[in-house]
Amino acid sequence: MVDTRTETDALGSLQVPKKSYYGIQTLRALENFPMTTYALDDDFINGLAMVKKASAIANYDTGSLDQSIKEAVVQACDEILDGKMHDQFVVDPIQGGAGTSINMNTNEVIANRGLEILGEERGKYSILSPNSHVNLAQSTNDVVPTAFRITVLTKLDQLIVSFEDLKESFNHKAEEFDSLVKMGRTHLQDAIPIRLGQEFAAYGSAVDRSLQRFIKLKENLVSVNMGATAVGTGLNASEDYIERVIDELAAVSNFPISLADSLVDATQNTEFYSDISSALKTSMLSLSKIANDIRLMASGPRTGLNEINLPQRQPGSSIMPGKVNPVMPELINQLSFQVCGNDTTVSMAVEAGQFELNVMGPVIFHNILESLTLMINGSRVFKEYCIDGITANSDTMEDYVNQSVGIITAINPHVGYEKASAVAKKALESGRSVRDITLEENILSEQQLDQLLDPFAMTSPGIIELTQDE
Amino acid sequence: MVDTRTETDALGSLQVPKKSYYGIQTLRALENFPMTTYALDDDFINGLAMVKKASAIANYDTGSLDQSIKEAVVQACDEILDGKMHDQFVVDPIQGGAGTSINMNTNEVIANRGLEILGEERGKYSILSPNSHVNLAQSTNDVVPTAFRITVLTKLDQLIVSFEDLKESFNHKAEEFDSLVKMGRTHLQDAIPIRLGQEFAAYGSAVDRSLQRFIKLKENLVSVNMGATAVGTGLNASEDYIERVIDELAAVSNFPISLADSLVDATQNTEFYSDISSALKTSMLSLSKIANDIRLMASGPRTGLNEINLPQRQPGSSIMPGKVNPVMPELINQLSFQVCGNDTTVSMAVEAGQFELNVMGPVIFHNILESLTLMINGSRVFKEYCIDGITANSDTMEDYVNQSVGIITAINPHVGYEKASAVAKKALESGRSVRDITLEENILSEQQLDQLLDPFAMTSPGIIELTQDE
Amino acid sequence: MVDTRTETDALGSLQVPKKSYYGIQTLRALENFPMTTYALDDDFINGLAMVKKASAIANYDTGSLDQSIKEAVVQACDEILDGKMHDQFVVDPIQGGAGTSINMNTNEVIANRGLEILGEERGKYSILSPNSHVNLAQSTNDVVPTAFRITVLTKLDQLIVSFEDLKESFNHKAEEFDSLVKMGRTHLQDAIPIRLGQEFAAYGSAVDRSLQRFIKLKENLVSVNMGATAVGTGLNASEDYIERVIDELAAVSNFPISLADSLVDATQNTEFYSDISSALKTSMLSLSKIANDIRLMASGPRTGLNEINLPQRQPGSSIMPGKVNPVMPELINQLSFQVCGNDTTVSMAVEAGQFELNVMGPVIFHNILESLTLMINGSRVFKEYCIDGITANSDTMEDYVNQSVGIITAINPHVGYEKASAVAKKALESGRSVRDITLEENILSEQQLDQLLDPFAMTSPGIIELTQDE
Amino acid sequence: MVDTRTETDALGSLQVPKKSYYGIQTLRALENFPMTTYALDDDFINGLAMVKKASAIANYDTGSLDQSIKEAVVQACDEILDGKMHDQFVVDPIQGGAGTSINMNTNEVIANRGLEILGEERGKYSILSPNSHVNLAQSTNDVVPTAFRITVLTKLDQLIVSFEDLKESFNHKAEEFDSLVKMGRTHLQDAIPIRLGQEFAAYGSAVDRSLQRFIKLKENLVSVNMGATAVGTGLNASEDYIERVIDELAAVSNFPISLADSLVDATQNTEFYSDISSALKTSMLSLSKIANDIRLMASGPRTGLNEINLPQRQPGSSIMPGKVNPVMPELINQLSFQVCGNDTTVSMAVEAGQFELNVMGPVIFHNILESLTLMINGSRVFKEYCIDGITANSDTMEDYVNQSVGIITAINPHVGYEKASAVAKKALESGRSVRDITLEENILSEQQLDQLLDPFAMTSPGIIELTQDE
Repeated sequence: MVDTRTETDALGSLQVPKKSYYGIQTLRALENFPMTTYALDDDFINGLAMVKKASAIANYDTGSLDQSIKEAVVQACDEILDGKMHDQFVVDPIQGGAGTSINMNTNEVIANRGLEILGEERGKYSILSPNSHVNLAQSTNDVVPTAFRITVLTKLDQLIVSFEDLKESFNHKAEEFDSLVKMGRTHLQDAIPIRLGQEFAAYGSAVDRSLQRFIKLKENLVSVNMGATAVGTGLNASEDYIERVIDELAAVSNFPISLADSLVDATQNTEFYSDISSALKTSMLSLSKIANDIRLMASGPRTGLNEINLPQRQPGSSIMPGKVNPVMPELINQLSFQVCGNDTTVSMAVEAGQFELNVMGPVIFHNILESLTLMINGSRVFKEYCIDGITANSDTMEDYVNQSVGIITAINPHVGYEKASAVAKKALESGRSVRDITLEENILSEQQLDQLLDPFAMTSPGIIELTQDE
Repeated sequence: MVDTRTETDALGSLQVPKKSYYGIQTLRALENFPMTTYALDDDFINGLAMVKKASAIANYDTGSLDQSIKEAVVQACDEILDGKMHDQFVVDPIQGGAGTSINMNTNEVIANRGLEILGEERGKYSILSPNSHVNLAQSTNDVVPTAFRITVLTKLDQLIVSFEDLKESFNHKAEEFDSLVKMGRTHLQDAIPIRLGQEFAAYGSAVDRSLQRFIKLKENLVSVNMGATAVGTGLNASEDYIERVIDELAAVSNFPISLADSLVDATQNTEFYSDISSALKTSMLSLSKIANDIRLMASGPRTGLNEINLPQRQPGSSIMPGKVNPVMPELINQLSFQVCGNDTTVSMAVEAGQFELNVMGPVIFHNILESLTLMINGSRVFKEYCIDGITANSDTMEDYVNQSVGIITAINPHVGYEKASAVAKKALESGRSVRDITLEENILSEQQLDQLLDPFAMTSPGIIELTQDE
Repeated sequence: MVDTRTETDALGSLQVPKKSYYGIQTLRALENFPMTTYALDDDFINGLAMVKKASAIANYDTGSLDQSIKEAVVQACDEILDGKMHDQFVVDPIQGGAGTSINMNTNEVIANRGLEILGEERGKYSILSPNSHVNLAQSTNDVVPTAFRITVLTKLDQLIVSFEDLKESFNHKAEEFDSLVKMGRTHLQDAIPIRLGQEFAAYGSAVDRSLQRFIKLKENLVSVNMGATAVGTGLNASEDYIERVIDELAAVSNFPISLADSLVDATQNTEFYSDISSALKTSMLSLSKIANDIRLMASGPRTGLNEINLPQRQPGSSIMPGKVNPVMPELINQLSFQVCGNDTTVSMAVEAGQFELNVMGPVIFHNILESLTLMINGSRVFKEYCIDGITANSDTMEDYVNQSVGIITAINPHVGYEKASAVAKKALESGRSVRDITLEENILSEQQLDQLLDPFAMTSPGIIELTQDE
Repeated sequence: MVDTRTETDALGSLQVPKKSYYGIQTLRALENFPMTTYALDDDFINGLAMVKKASAIANYDTGSLDQSIKEAVVQACDEILDGKMHDQFVVDPIQGGAGTSINMNTNEVIANRGLEILGEERGKYSILSPNSHVNLAQSTNDVVPTAFRITVLTKLDQLIVSFEDLKESFNHKAEEFDSLVKMGRTHLQDAIPIRLGQEFAAYGSAVDRSLQRFIKLKENLVSVNMGATAVGTGLNASEDYIERVIDELAAVSNFPISLADSLVDATQNTEFYSDISSALKTSMLSLSKIANDIRLMASGPRTGLNEINLPQRQPGSSIMPGKVNPVMPELINQLSFQVCGNDTTVSMAVEAGQFELNVMGPVIFHNILESLTLMINGSRVFKEYCIDGITANSDTMEDYVNQSVGIITAINPHVGYEKASAVAKKALESGRSVRDITLEENILSEQQLDQLLDPFAMTSPGIIELTQDE
């Protein structure tokens, strides 16, 4: 038998395990929403603790909370921020009620730990109440969205580090591979030469644009709706309190938190969640294209393109000796699909807002935080275990260029499209080289061909000119 | 100045072009919904005409419509079914009002053409009214969904022909290519041999499963909610009428139309639209994978896999002489993405039903019909202009097999995984063949290797055995 | 310091914690894919154990495995099926490598537990090897998809129970509410009367169609690709073995497992995953529409429709006393959005198959299993904590009907659409009742109105007739 | 018999209708891609003409094109920009080949019209060639993406006008309704008072954020990849030419066109298309939420909320007299679903880029342009035919507030949460007012209640204070 204490709320009484910091409303949520086995995100728990701490201070400063209560609440919050009691946040991330259970779980843990600090028994809410003290002048509808924004800010900072490293890795490879000429391909068909370094530089640029997207998001994320209370009108939250809580939130979070222009608007219109999710999705679509390129370039080794080699990360087959698979880019592809799926969920949930609130918050929060976590972790291992260790097979790439027909494009301006086409056709049909045929048919001299068929020269803008004396 | 006639409805009067068969409510829709430049689908227009014809006959049979009116309506419907007056269906496929404008456009065209047949002036609705006669005992909420189902049945029959042909084409190629051994690839990495014919047979099987999906859909599509009127309760539609209209609809459409079990349910719950759209989506995802394989196999010719050749359909580049691109499989990919997008639209629209009706019908109808049209047209040209003309480069494929390391898998059971791994590793590092190394290290004899390294034998289940005397 | 043992694979050696049943390849996966905090699904772990057990028996029966090895493997599998060692399945559900890490984690746990059973030390793979014994005649590419199918079958059975109960609950309420007339609404506008019971019966029918979808899925799910090995050709899996493993799998799983028609096809074409996911999505779209209806009907109580009351599950607000929110239907909406998002992920992953394999399996498995879990849990609490306890406010509904204008539709056939329209307009403008105005204007007598304006009669098909003597 | 001329390309000869300006490659595309009945977007055709004009001038300026040819091309382009010959752009918007057919259709129309201007016969490409002259120094891979960007810029300007008007309309209504107090609702349950004007102001703010999104997009859209030619390396495009073509493009388009930082990157990484589509999607999700609110507020009139009245746009039912439906917000919902679906298509297409090019351009272009068109048209009619004409039922709203229980929240700070809860519970159970019960139980005096229960005061931040003397 578990030792319990009795707690009571508007709907009646329940037995709460004595050793738990959470209380009756958390218990109700556990019964109502036994959905997943997932825990609440740790950064989110910290974000909630920051909001509660800032609010307690603001309430004390504006005379609504006694000093002892304030101090107990602040200490409890600090302990959570220290990583303690996270196992007491037990409500399912997917839940009805717009996050009321997330908020009440937080209020109850802080209240009970606060009571303990005050030397009182857990559950003695007449002294320190989850509602009247920890949640004072707040509503789920301002607390949870605000905590979520702080969480996203926190995770974006991690993501920015991770993508910054990935960009550097691509740029480093771009330099390393800058002199290596290979065949460019469009439609998966032979096109004209390009340098492997140019491709990796392009990957670096794409990652850099993702970074710009994340940085841009931060500008808006700092704007919160604390003080909105239930519907954005701010009933029961004084203007003094609102001003103070914003300042404290900035202090405790180290982000330049500011108040939303309109609390009514900020509480009911949640399309910014779609802005966040879209930015993540777009960045992963871009990374997935890059992962596909890498898988194609590393395909083979004997029956694929075999232009580059990926670090071997694990045996690829229990039945085929020697096989090693491109597991890291495959991971990136899958993360991209997951983030896209999460974006669909977010879209539908954003659209489902009604009147003064979007009650679909929890599923939005869960999906965006999952996307962020996957991207932080995924981009890090992609860099460390894949990009950093890529090596190039320059001979293979050179062979491709030399046997290709596409290099004829450089001859084009000098002999005309029709003659060039005829040579190309003959080369493709006979399997012979463009150079041989052009020579054989006396279209250009060997010297001229040496100048024109310079693959490296073809990788920069311009028409390759023949020198005067030819 | 356009010659006009005055028409009046509950909201007032408007000037309708004299020569138009549509009337005032169509005019209102034109003003309200100037969304796209797309026309209503022709099969949909025919489906609407079938419903109106069946309903007129049923109303006449149950004594609610005079013979002359019935005959005028039926003749007008028959003319529409003959392809006439389709240009009079001018409302935008995307519209508010759950399809009321589609229904009223139909009612008005039939009423005005009917009046003409009766020798009366267009617009003289006191004699033949769009509402009281053409729409008698009907509601937009049963007419339009029923017409839509007939339309989908019609298009599915076209799609089945188109996919049947595509399946045959794949199966024909499977036979043609049955003896051609190539390297199987997993993770885009060399695996073990497979026959090109096996791959094409698998494509044929996938298309066959799509066919089963379409056939399955038809079973449910024949069930309609005619007689539901406004909310499914059938108010103002007699049971006699309902029975008759179903029979007539079967007769006029040549589909075994039946009445839904519950008209209330059938009118308000529209998740079957998602069943339709999902079946289309899944079939296109499957076809897109096949298109990707074909693009990969045809990649090159000099710097790609170059295992097969696609028919040349159009010059691929204005700047690169001789380039030809895989435009048909690229088309299939894009159609797949479009059908997936359309499915997202359908999903959101299905979810948005409320109470007795889903008012989002028009966007659902438009997207499903677009998907069907794209699939009918796309699968036909994919077959005719691509699959039918594919040829194989058997030498290239054979070379790949011979130089591959994966064939070592067949040696595995005879020498153990460890020894096999060592050979594989050596082969990969040295660039030499598995056969050479195995021989050199006296692991197996030449005769044994001849038996074990038989690529064709590797493409069937089982462990390749060495004959007794080895 | 953790006590370790040294394990070695093709890529080198690593220190594995001595007390862990998993081995070196699991360790590599932990390093490569630190993506989420989610555990592998327990049913999935059991499905894997079933495959390994069946395979060991088949290998023994066909002479490829010694009896002692077979018995050790079988006992280890049975223990897993008993719920033991699930904490040793530590690889992340989202991973590169097409599930190789899932398969190897399973192989290693079974091998090490098997070694223990044999009285040997963990890690002594020369005696009982994860690859050569536990994975004998198998490949990740047949093992993991087969185990996944068994998992889905298992979960579908749970889902069917859950949805069956939900259907019964709706049907029970349909009977309870069968006599309660309310206003039907289309476009959220007053339409004509319907019975609350009719609406709940429609909900029951929608849930029943979901059940049919699940049952239909099971027919296909039993077909597996065991014996396909690497690319579907069955290399190194004898036909005897294949026959035996299918039989054993049926025996151990209690599902009528059968062999796929074409193993090549079954291994490379994975659009059936989209069939599964689509069926789940469509079912949740349907349930979300129902949840929306219930939230609308329960809206208020003072400023909404207030037609029904939901069981109170938790206090709805920490700031607004007395507020209780419809948390259970809100949960259903969010689950629907999540399942839709998961379907997007599955779609993209299915499309990404290439050649002989779809390497995106892990993200597909994770999303489908998450959807199934959410649906099993969600439908159960929706039934228990919401539908079962719904009560109706019949007075409110009756008031709505009596004050509505839509009931005039029943008068329509007796006085003509024009007169009816005039009365309707007057009623809407004046705020008075249809009955009063009709009487006042001597359009119908009190007796006639008593007959025609019978809301209950309006909820069945047909034109309400006036008795002869009127 | 149609009169024809013979044209020839690398694949052979075809008969082209003599009177058509398009040529052989357009004919091939017509045969290859008979997908939809949709025309190419007119703004897109103009965008293509701008690119061709700018390029001709740049080629002339850099000495690659004769003056007469340049002038003929420029005149032909100007005519297209004047709206002429748009019916000659006949290729399907959905096509394989990355837009080669769009580019060649353009090249052919301009070449043939140019020949006419030069007094030559159509088809005489030796004098003015679609490839060698009109397409000189260009590739489909720079022309079509550049034209698309100009098209999006053009449409965004239209969209900005349309959304600006919509914002003004909401803001105007916000002022008009600023004094009207109504009940705020969260979870569709009674919450606390808010002003109708506050809600409309929030809608205006949401539309304003959409405007910011559109404006932000324009910053990036002006950066184009002209000069990239085939793979971004700029082979055969001189640096002089590139500089000139950018300048001319700015001049002809009136947009501040600039050159992309890296042409390789800009040609192969297309995730910016997802940025565009996401911005459109997010804006429509926001608008759909607003449309839902409006439909809910306008629900009834007798059996819904009936807080506002929408302009009547068309009769809502052919069977229910007097019914008028909220067709304009229903349109917005559907447009939102369509734009979301289009975004799914764009996402999948963006992910499918490979190596130096994303060949899925056409389906991306089609979907983004469709979304833009729907949004331009939809937002305009939503404003004109719906928002502008909304009127409020202030009496109904006032009644809701007075009978609500949620107003008790204002009493909370003065009597404590527990007492307030008890009153709320009693009110809800008895159906009586909060005021009556509070008075009856002597909790507050009539004067105090007059101060506290001031709904208007409740719509601003703060705790309503009792004046000293109470």
